[in-house]
Amino acid sequence: MSSVETAEEFKTRSQIDQPVETQFNGSTEFVLITDHKSPKKGCNIGDFLQSGVKNVFRKKTLYKRFPILTWLPRYTRNDAIGDVIAGITVGLTVIPQGLAYAGVAGLPTQFGLYGAFMGCFTYVLLGTCKDSTIGSTAIASLMVFQFAKGVWQLAILLTFLTGIIEILMALFRLTFIIEFVSGPVSAGFTSAVALIISTSQIKNILGVKNASGNTFLERWISMIKDINSIRVADTILGCSCVVILIIMRYVGRIKVGPKSDRKWRHVFATKLLWFLGVSRNAILVIVCAAVSMYLENEGKSYFRITGFVPAGLPEFGLPPFSIEATPANATSGAPAVEAMNFTDMVGELGFGLLIVPLVALLENIAVCKAFAKGQPIDTTQEVLTIGIANVANSLFQGYRANGGLARSAVNNASGVRTPLGNFYIGLIVILALLFLTEFFYYIPQAVLAAIIISAVIFQLQYHVVLPMWRSKRSDLIPCFVAFIACLVLPLEIGILVAIGVNLLFILYHSARPKVRLETLETQDGIKFLQLTPDRCLIFPSVEFVRNLVLKFGNKTTLPVVIDCTYIYGADYTAAKVISSLIEDFKRRNQKIIFYNLKPNVVQIFDGLNISLTLCYNTDALTQALRENQNGAATKPPLENDVEACIKSSSETLNSALTA
Amino acid sequence: MSSVETAEEFKTRSQIDQPVETQFNGSTEFVLITDHKSPKKGCNIGDFLQSGVKNVFRKKTLYKRFPILTWLPRYTRNDAIGDVIAGITVGLTVIPQGLAYAGVAGLPTQFGLYGAFMGCFTYVLLGTCKDSTIGSTAIASLMVFQFAKGVWQLAILLTFLTGIIEILMALFRLTFIIEFVSGPVSAGFTSAVALIISTSQIKNILGVKNASGNTFLERWISMIKDINSIRVADTILGCSCVVILIIMRYVGRIKVGPKSDRKWRHVFATKLLWFLGVSRNAILVIVCAAVSMYLENEGKSYFRITGFVPAGLPEFGLPPFSIEATPANATSGAPAVEAMNFTDMVGELGFGLLIVPLVALLENIAVCKAFAKGQPIDTTQEVLTIGIANVANSLFQGYRANGGLARSAVNNASGVRTPLGNFYIGLIVILALLFLTEFFYYIPQAVLAAIIISAVIFQLQYHVVLPMWRSKRSDLIPCFVAFIACLVLPLEIGILVAIGVNLLFILYHSARPKVRLETLETQDGIKFLQLTPDRCLIFPSVEFVRNLVLKFGNKTTLPVVIDCTYIYGADYTAAKVISSLIEDFKRRNQKIIFYNLKPNVVQIFDGLNISLTLCYNTDALTQALRENQNGAATKPPLENDVEACIKSSSETLNSALTA
Repeated sequence: MSSVETAEEFKTRSQIDQPVETQFNGSTEFVLITDHKSPKKGCNIGDFLQSGVKNVFRKKTLYKRFPILTWLPRYTRNDAIGDVIAGITVGLTVIPQGLAYAGVAGLPTQFGLYGAFMGCFTYVLLGTCKDSTIGSTAIASLMVFQFAKGVWQLAILLTFLTGIIEILMALFRLTFIIEFVSGPVSAGFTSAVALIISTSQIKNILGVKNASGNTFLERWISMIKDINSIRVADTILGCSCVVILIIMRYVGRIKVGPKSDRKWRHVFATKLLWFLGVSRNAILVIVCAAVSMYLENEGKSYFRITGFVPAGLPEFGLPPFSIEATPANATSGAPAVEAMNFTDMVGELGFGLLIVPLVALLENIAVCKAFAKGQPIDTTQEVLTIGIANVANSLFQGYRANGGLARSAVNNASGVRTPLGNFYIGLIVILALLFLTEFFYYIPQAVLAAIIISAVIFQLQYHVVLPMWRSKRSDLIPCFVAFIACLVLPLEIGILVAIGVNLLFILYHSARPKVRLETLETQDGIKFLQLTPDRCLIFPSVEFVRNLVLKFGNKTTLPVVIDCTYIYGADYTAAKVISSLIEDFKRRNQKIIFYNLKPNVVQIFDGLNISLTLCYNTDALTQALRENQNGAATKPPLENDVEACIKSSSETLNSALTA
Repeated sequence: MSSVETAEEFKTRSQIDQPVETQFNGSTEFVLITDHKSPKKGCNIGDFLQSGVKNVFRKKTLYKRFPILTWLPRYTRNDAIGDVIAGITVGLTVIPQGLAYAGVAGLPTQFGLYGAFMGCFTYVLLGTCKDSTIGSTAIASLMVFQFAKGVWQLAILLTFLTGIIEILMALFRLTFIIEFVSGPVSAGFTSAVALIISTSQIKNILGVKNASGNTFLERWISMIKDINSIRVADTILGCSCVVILIIMRYVGRIKVGPKSDRKWRHVFATKLLWFLGVSRNAILVIVCAAVSMYLENEGKSYFRITGFVPAGLPEFGLPPFSIEATPANATSGAPAVEAMNFTDMVGELGFGLLIVPLVALLENIAVCKAFAKGQPIDTTQEVLTIGIANVANSLFQGYRANGGLARSAVNNASGVRTPLGNFYIGLIVILALLFLTEFFYYIPQAVLAAIIISAVIFQLQYHVVLPMWRSKRSDLIPCFVAFIACLVLPLEIGILVAIGVNLLFILYHSARPKVRLETLETQDGIKFLQLTPDRCLIFPSVEFVRNLVLKFGNKTTLPVVIDCTYIYGADYTAAKVISSLIEDFKRRNQKIIFYNLKPNVVQIFDGLNISLTLCYNTDALTQALRENQNGAATKPPLENDVEACIKSSSETLNSALTA
């Protein structure tokens, strides 16, 4: 049916084009990309699931599912050098960031590193994008805090379950849901997240202890109430660190020497500055921790420091499926935890099980897109990889990890050649866990907070507002709704509200088609009214179109021609309404002709036994109009006339179908 | 802009049509019906509201808002005769139905009549459809029961508030929301309602006392548990009444005598049978109540009877805005009521305040459509009328009223000529309230239940299944979802779920366009790849289209032409994606040309400063392709070439804009 439709249309077009100077000789090579999960075929969900499961295990797709099979056999020494350098550079970013993000997630510091190596190893095997590196990100950490509320058992179970859900999403090809998050919504959401995270870290910079609450507003209110407990040393350290980090960020971009004719020393100086810029977080942490260590050993505790971080790798094992009651721990600051069984825990995570994979996927695909260089992205493979990475993470007490844009940009700029770069990152994180934890003890909390703040403030998407205003103003509405809703409501509700508002635009779009209205004339002077709706006839719009046709049809006795060129689909409701429309015209003895109605739409109307007058080219249309005029002269006209025209038009249709 | 767009398109078409035998001489008369609440213009909501409010008070629309001004001056004696006869006939249906529906709504019997006259009087002044009559309906009564739970104060407040909401809907032109309820969903919902109401009435027929619960399932379960308390006399009476009513319904359709050459006695007998059929409810009530009266006076209480109905008109006054606590009344069967203030009451009604107007509007518009005979329906005026009618109703202790299909069909068949027929119906109801209440005491409850059951079983929409299967199978899904969800969930949640599922179809629809792919050739042998998406580029679909273009673009070095004829809109997300697509093609030195892209879409892309290569006719396209080929020969090619083509195509665009 589909290919026939194509043939038919193609014929029509070339026929029209023929007399024009430039003729297009259509080849016979054409493919109609049909929508394989269209409502029509979607009925047999069993088949669909089966094919999804089958696809994963088919031998053909083995290379697609394990991209390492493609690049590893061609791995060269140059690749290895590039990957090692990039791995070390990114490792220097990942360790301080990991320590800092653990704070955002409300977890003990070591968890920031526990989640930073299994994801990398998984990505080596399954990843499609050489630049992407898997680890904790600001957004993912915030989401974990939002749903696990600082209970590490919940955080790890969340990681495990969302990993499973992502694997299922890949298996059942449900990744298309991320397409329902538009650019404006995602910009608003990201900006709100940047503000929320900054707020949570300003607490650490000020040394204020109390900043609780679920939403941005609540946190600010509780922080301002507690403003008396501000710690001066932490505040000064934190603020200066933010300034230093931002300056170093810009220093890293300086190109030394003249634009052309650069000496080796220019190049070397530029590279050095770049490396300073890239490893600014690591440098700052090392310097500040060294100073703090010296001060502490002198017995001077000016700063709040990170405190004890257990050395060694995390234990391997299944994630906790229940929690025993533990009292609040004053030393580590861990909150009191009530006993929970599995159901309680899942109930506590609730919405998070759906929102976290959605947001993770958005973030990850954004990374892939940024470095795809015109290659299509295999979203399914990416979500599968992220899912497996998180299941693996949860087995080593790690929390949520996915690709992060900032980190991947460093990876790319460091000259990574294959996903193997991820292997070295993971290795460095493991070495840090084994040998550096004693040193982590001295890192001031304000420094980690400064690292986060200086990273997330660049996520504020203020620069999208102007292009959006120039391009399509109404898109600012979902953008601001997302921004404000995420700030005043709990994050997960905020993003759902924004997506909902945005989908209302689409629904309104399909409810109000544009209809062009013209009074035309054939060569032999038969006038007719032509209405051209510009999109499909489905239930929200068909009533609107019917009212228009009736309104303008009633004002005239001319035959009405509906140009259906742009109507690509219809449904039962539309068929019913069109049926009553035809009845109305029959009652008034006024002719209504459907011009260029696609065979698949005709099929839908045929189900209700509607007697349509169909025409597929201007000849047939003129003929039908001429017959109508003659018929009008010799009353009673319509009955036979309609029959004749249906007959002739269904012949046209048949010839089209067999063409 | 819009009209220019039309002009441009029109020119293109007539140009193509010229050499074809039948030429259409386009007149200059064309109107583009633009969507006046389109997202683009929807930004200034202030203006929009203002115009809505203004429209209602404009002198021009006075006649539109008071249709009585149109028909009353032309009122004739024949009109009066027709209206009086129809009024009396319908009145005989309305009174027994009103008494019965009060039971469905869980209210004392008299409330069924309290709500049956003000709506009629209002409709005389404001109604647009002569056949529609305003009163309680099965669906409206069930909704009232669902939300007011048998508390009359809540029922009246619900009526008042929903009336206000309907008036606001009319004022702000929000009636389009009913278009989001498709035919299949409304069929499923109506069928479920028919089953639910039958269930609630089977309780009265069996004489079982206990049938509580919010959903269909719960009610059946509690009824079966209480099956021991079945009352034999009521069961026999009820079942025979259902059978009698159905037989009388068919008897009313019998045509006496031969088809042609019918004598006056044939006509008279047919009319008599018809009247018997139409007034079957009234006849049955009179006969059964008379028998019951006789038996009661003999001291034999076989049947559960209606009981005391207070005589006289209801008191006029504002609806109750608070409730005082009252203990359960064993005599009237009224449940115990807790004290409530206004906020409590509104909280109790909750969702009902939105769902009831939606369902009422659906029902009312269905009536208008059934009798519109090809006239467009003024939905706004109808919802305004229903709103005012319900506010008026609530001032006389009446509950929800709107147009009912069955009753209006009787009105139509009785030969009503104007909305004045409603006046006589209202009058008869008032007379009944004044003089017949003592007689109502004796009506057996089983008879009223039988009246309802024999009415609603014909609302089961089983006959839509086959046409839906033949026409568009996937539409059966929302239909069955609506049916089952309304049975197993509370009614209001059920319909929301069904609407949600149905809207998912639309969203999927906009996320997965069909794209036609062809390799074509110009007359001088330049091959190119042409992709033709069949609908607009908006955020759920644009990523899909981009991946397709990249996938097929990557496989070839041919220039790619995107035929944008069918792309009627775009958004910011689409512009961003297309921008990155163009970057990708530029990087590969492959040409990408947008053919026939509408100026309003170009504007959206221009906001992001995208350098599009645009062509608006086959000449320009051939030229662009030729330049590309020459450019490819003399590298470096693309930069200038693109510039040139943009220049030439923007000239085409400008000429189109100024055409």
